[in-house]
Amino acid sequence: MLGSTRGTLTTGPRSARVLACPEQSPNTRPVHARAGESADGAGAAAADAARTQDPDVSGRPLHAAVPDLDRFFRPESVAVVGASDAEGRPNTGITRQLFDWAERVGARLHPVHPQRSTVFGRPCVRSVAELPGPVDLAVLLVADPLPVLEQLAEAKAGFAVVFASGFAETGAEGAEAQRKLAEAAARAGLRLLGPNTNLNAFEHFRDDLDGPAIALITQSGHQGRPVFALQELGIRLSHWAPTGNEADLETADFVSYFASRPEVGAVAAYVEGLRDGRAFLLAADRAARSGVPVVAVKVGRTETGARTAASHTGKLTGADATADAAMRQSGVIRVAGLDELQDTAALLARARPPRAEGVAVYAISGGTGAHLSDLAAGAGLTLPTLSAAKQAELHQWIPGYLSVANPVDCGGHPVGDWRGRKIIDALLADPDIGVLICPITGPFPPMSDRLAQDLADAAEETDKLVCVVWGSPVGTEDAYRHTLLGSSRVATFRTFANCVNAVRAYLGHHRFIRDYRSPFDSAPRTPSPSFRKARELLRPGERLSEHAAKQLLRAYGIRVPREQLVTSAAGAVRSAAQVGYPVVMKASAPQLAHKSDYGLVKVALTSASQVRETYRELTEVARCEGIELDGVLVCQMVDPGVEMVVGVSQDAVFGPTVTAGLGGVLVEVLRDTAVRIPPFGEEAARDLIGELRGRALLDGVRGRPPADVDALVEVVLRVQRMALELSGTAPGLLAELDINPLVVLERGQGAVALDALAVCG
Amino acid sequence: MLGSTRGTLTTGPRSARVLACPEQSPNTRPVHARAGESADGAGAAAADAARTQDPDVSGRPLHAAVPDLDRFFRPESVAVVGASDAEGRPNTGITRQLFDWAERVGARLHPVHPQRSTVFGRPCVRSVAELPGPVDLAVLLVADPLPVLEQLAEAKAGFAVVFASGFAETGAEGAEAQRKLAEAAARAGLRLLGPNTNLNAFEHFRDDLDGPAIALITQSGHQGRPVFALQELGIRLSHWAPTGNEADLETADFVSYFASRPEVGAVAAYVEGLRDGRAFLLAADRAARSGVPVVAVKVGRTETGARTAASHTGKLTGADATADAAMRQSGVIRVAGLDELQDTAALLARARPPRAEGVAVYAISGGTGAHLSDLAAGAGLTLPTLSAAKQAELHQWIPGYLSVANPVDCGGHPVGDWRGRKIIDALLADPDIGVLICPITGPFPPMSDRLAQDLADAAEETDKLVCVVWGSPVGTEDAYRHTLLGSSRVATFRTFANCVNAVRAYLGHHRFIRDYRSPFDSAPRTPSPSFRKARELLRPGERLSEHAAKQLLRAYGIRVPREQLVTSAAGAVRSAAQVGYPVVMKASAPQLAHKSDYGLVKVALTSASQVRETYRELTEVARCEGIELDGVLVCQMVDPGVEMVVGVSQDAVFGPTVTAGLGGVLVEVLRDTAVRIPPFGEEAARDLIGELRGRALLDGVRGRPPADVDALVEVVLRVQRMALELSGTAPGLLAELDINPLVVLERGQGAVALDALAVCG
Repeated sequence: MLGSTRGTLTTGPRSARVLACPEQSPNTRPVHARAGESADGAGAAAADAARTQDPDVSGRPLHAAVPDLDRFFRPESVAVVGASDAEGRPNTGITRQLFDWAERVGARLHPVHPQRSTVFGRPCVRSVAELPGPVDLAVLLVADPLPVLEQLAEAKAGFAVVFASGFAETGAEGAEAQRKLAEAAARAGLRLLGPNTNLNAFEHFRDDLDGPAIALITQSGHQGRPVFALQELGIRLSHWAPTGNEADLETADFVSYFASRPEVGAVAAYVEGLRDGRAFLLAADRAARSGVPVVAVKVGRTETGARTAASHTGKLTGADATADAAMRQSGVIRVAGLDELQDTAALLARARPPRAEGVAVYAISGGTGAHLSDLAAGAGLTLPTLSAAKQAELHQWIPGYLSVANPVDCGGHPVGDWRGRKIIDALLADPDIGVLICPITGPFPPMSDRLAQDLADAAEETDKLVCVVWGSPVGTEDAYRHTLLGSSRVATFRTFANCVNAVRAYLGHHRFIRDYRSPFDSAPRTPSPSFRKARELLRPGERLSEHAAKQLLRAYGIRVPREQLVTSAAGAVRSAAQVGYPVVMKASAPQLAHKSDYGLVKVALTSASQVRETYRELTEVARCEGIELDGVLVCQMVDPGVEMVVGVSQDAVFGPTVTAGLGGVLVEVLRDTAVRIPPFGEEAARDLIGELRGRALLDGVRGRPPADVDALVEVVLRVQRMALELSGTAPGLLAELDINPLVVLERGQGAVALDALAVCG
Repeated sequence: MLGSTRGTLTTGPRSARVLACPEQSPNTRPVHARAGESADGAGAAAADAARTQDPDVSGRPLHAAVPDLDRFFRPESVAVVGASDAEGRPNTGITRQLFDWAERVGARLHPVHPQRSTVFGRPCVRSVAELPGPVDLAVLLVADPLPVLEQLAEAKAGFAVVFASGFAETGAEGAEAQRKLAEAAARAGLRLLGPNTNLNAFEHFRDDLDGPAIALITQSGHQGRPVFALQELGIRLSHWAPTGNEADLETADFVSYFASRPEVGAVAAYVEGLRDGRAFLLAADRAARSGVPVVAVKVGRTETGARTAASHTGKLTGADATADAAMRQSGVIRVAGLDELQDTAALLARARPPRAEGVAVYAISGGTGAHLSDLAAGAGLTLPTLSAAKQAELHQWIPGYLSVANPVDCGGHPVGDWRGRKIIDALLADPDIGVLICPITGPFPPMSDRLAQDLADAAEETDKLVCVVWGSPVGTEDAYRHTLLGSSRVATFRTFANCVNAVRAYLGHHRFIRDYRSPFDSAPRTPSPSFRKARELLRPGERLSEHAAKQLLRAYGIRVPREQLVTSAAGAVRSAAQVGYPVVMKASAPQLAHKSDYGLVKVALTSASQVRETYRELTEVARCEGIELDGVLVCQMVDPGVEMVVGVSQDAVFGPTVTAGLGGVLVEVLRDTAVRIPPFGEEAARDLIGELRGRALLDGVRGRPPADVDALVEVVLRVQRMALELSGTAPGLLAELDINPLVVLERGQGAVALDALAVCG
């Protein structure tokens, strides 16, 4: 058996995720034992069992399943099924590469081929049944991997890699074939990488580079190539996991594993789609607990991208706004381009935590300083004005007519002599400065060579971050190639934008890690007292009436107006007296949306006669419109406040999500909403509100009092609780909830749900 | 005299801009004759005179002043004042570079120095007065250039370059010294470049490159260095104008001149601040008429950037939103980074006009295709799905299981043999495709070398645009350095983002040029009939009452409610009867803003008794608040509609601007406004509305009827007319106008200004 418990992995038990609750998410994996996760002792087995029985209230796991991938990346014995040394066959090159790799990592390699007795001079067996003993890893180069996977149970293989394509990326039939592969792997008790993957895990990694490394995960091999090529610029890479279609092992598994590896300084990922949103969030949680930054390109910002990704690795991208929110709330740094992926991951892997958040910009030209400062401020970086004493110090070496307030313009000449290093050291000694950025826009060797050397030397002697932007498009200059890239302490960029964005990510990551409290630690495990009552209100396959939806809210402690459902004018008058004047009256029917557009809402009714008259009017309008009412709601009239929307939706990848936004017609047009994926804590709920463009409206504008944001946050958290306890796409569950408007009253007065829509699956 | 009229310059007369109208903008230059613009015959003089007398109604010029800079860039004789050959003196290096340059361009160089008789073996005169004859260009290396400028009148110099710094960039005193320089230059009849500039115009340009060139303008020499270095990547540069503090010659002058040069394919500019907004717009107009793209970095997006730019070259950046709008409306392509400046300018300089707007993405990896397509679609590019016939054609060479719908994934192998070129040619032959983008994310020489060569070969034989993204961060690979950079027909990029953004700019530029109609051709030259009446309503230094501001609007044909100003309850009742019930009543006082916040607006009054009561209430509230009313407005009540704001503001650089936005409190919070700089036409006014995030509200949402956008556009154009005729910062003019709200009724019903604020300078 593989998977001996290693020191780095003992913090989290490893086992299949078994969901205890009947409301399983559609993203739940088939339940099966996993070789790579199997425990090796009674204690670990008990821990596994404990974890299996510790899901959250929605039945989703609360702990990442961290596969032990040591023997995948450093196997002792490897079978190559479909090995070839015949001239001109594609498998020949692959076999040769695997032989080379096996030799480098010290693995025994066993060729397997039905018609060969040797391959490259090594004895070849006819099938995996004839392998001399258990293998850690089987690489399947055959077109039809399914029968081989089935035989691998006998060989007690820990891992199989399937290169063949033609699975989920080709459509429904391929997806079915892929499902069968995953099942066969589970039956064989092994973990599967692929199908539709390649050799990237078995590349030749440079072993002469040191310091924290980047570990790379890509759902497309070609897309990882530029990050891999960073080694040619002196940046260390430790692993590359090309996950392909992810029939079994997925991006999340590798994130979790890499987060536990001491040599990994940052994870860089190219992601087309996520298989299991919760698994991804748990992996990110693990990375956050370990302080390991995860930087990711995620395709699917546009319809075009989402469609194309689906046809490439057969993955759904889900709603991009949801994926984006998932990354932001879990501290994963999303970047758009591969160049940013390289630059950001390299910086975050290698830079020590910041000593201060202030950025100093130092340039040999005022224009360069102005431009970089503009971009830095635009990226949200803080450029503190240097103290008068610091400026005076700098003016010892920099002519008095140049501005050294920050940015610092030295005018050029001082960098060519002894003054250059003095200036750099003085800036790095400033306690407000945690990052020094020096753009060298144009190389002028008498100055820039010395400047580069001074920066590299100074970087060796400081624990602060030194960044250089080498602006020349040529890139063959000595100062760039040797001095800067030769330094493991200088972070070198080729564009201003990548530099300021990477520095923002660096400072943001360390803030995130410093303040991090895992939302999984405090996620609810058992239903709240509200649950039983709320469950009874759900109606499988139906949309609830406004009144029933509000009862659902009330069950979760969300305030709704006093209201009564009546079916006669006399009943309306009685109810109005009980609810208290003035009242609002609304026609009520389960299928009725946009009531006010039909004139089916009447406000500010102040007398019994108005109520009686209105009852007749509403029922008459409904009759003319052909709407069958279940009654008329007589509601307490609520004071005006800031109208918000809060709701629950279902995402194909992440399951239930909580959305909040400003309400009203205009905001619907502007789509001013933000989203979070449960579980999240109070701070995240506040951040959710903070992301709204129109959030200032809650602070009170034009003399209005500030709104009760605490109450709004409380409603968001209660709605999250509903999402966790009641929501899913399984029949009978709450598929969709929309409180619109939620009126947030002035501070201290709370928030009231004036209307709500609830749909059951 | 310099400045013989050349063929390329005859379309626009050259002369100083003389403003005929008393309402001169503060940006107006001092009126003086300019050597570089002087005409050389009676005909040209007459044309100059005609233009001088053809300003728009605001007194601003309608034609770019295009200086004849031929003798600046290619002088026959040059004086170097402060020339040195003494070891270790900074001027020695400069003098040497100028000697080298003069030799290359065939100019006679005359050193000038009070204590030397020779410099580098060439005879040196003691002062400019001793120069043997007129010089085209005088380069002033002296610390105090003012006396030399004064002497240069004698030398009949055409141009002077002042290197000295310490002028406007140092503050008010320096700005005054700079003004004196400009005046001395004007008196001497010469055009001045600088101060605070450098040698960039006299660099060594490669003359072995052909095709359309980039002409470069920078307000900071160092910032132009990367664009200049493009020559090392095979991209031609023709000129470099380092404008420094722009005491006289400014960015606009060089844009206008370069737009007329046949060798210039694109202008690349690094701009910190613009001296004269109208001059910039006229220069952009000239470039648009010539079809020459202008690509610019403009610092000042943030306060930090704006402040820093001011301390570098002493320029005001103005409001960034205004500068941004100016660039957009005049077709100037704004980019953020120097890398984008390089990539975009190089593409636009060299690419032929597009044959179609469709983009095909062709990659050897599905992941790369998916990622690039996602970014391309996000940038607004169109990736048409290829026809079934085209897909069948591609599947001759590409395995059937790969998607070739666009993006086209060839899986890799076909690029290694004869099929590779077939695929490229088939894509380029598609009539819907105008641009082929091929990302080569990772070099694998057996494939990528041939792919690069096939692309370079195919690009030679097509008039469509072929773009390659070389994704490797290394950049020393042969296929990149030689095959791709060696081709003048392939546009090579290093990042996906720069590629898709440059292609968007390329397609956008050609659309802009195709549809371009100069707003200056139709700008009003004479006051409208409204002008005289409106002028009488202005009150120097005062804020107008709401009633007076509305009269101003009415004078320009903008609809306001029927209303009367009354000073008694009885008068209010009489007026209400004349205006027609229901009425709105508002307290009226010149200094009164946010009336509704004080409860000083009452709506929907339907009877004489309500009107009488309301009159008493409003005057009482005003008395309690200590507001001195000039009366109470009794106004017609207007139907509800979409509330907008339309107004006029003053920008430090561009003068009066017209702003439109969605109205209401929420939109104030969201700041959903857009701006245009007069003059602009109806299409630009429509674009202004189209830029609003909440524009869909005008289309009618939630069952509301579409709003009268035509009427809104008409109001914007009438407000523009007011801005042109009435506005400025000179005393007595309309400094600020704000119609808020302008209620846009449903289509066909017009728009009504419910309230207005007008402030005179």
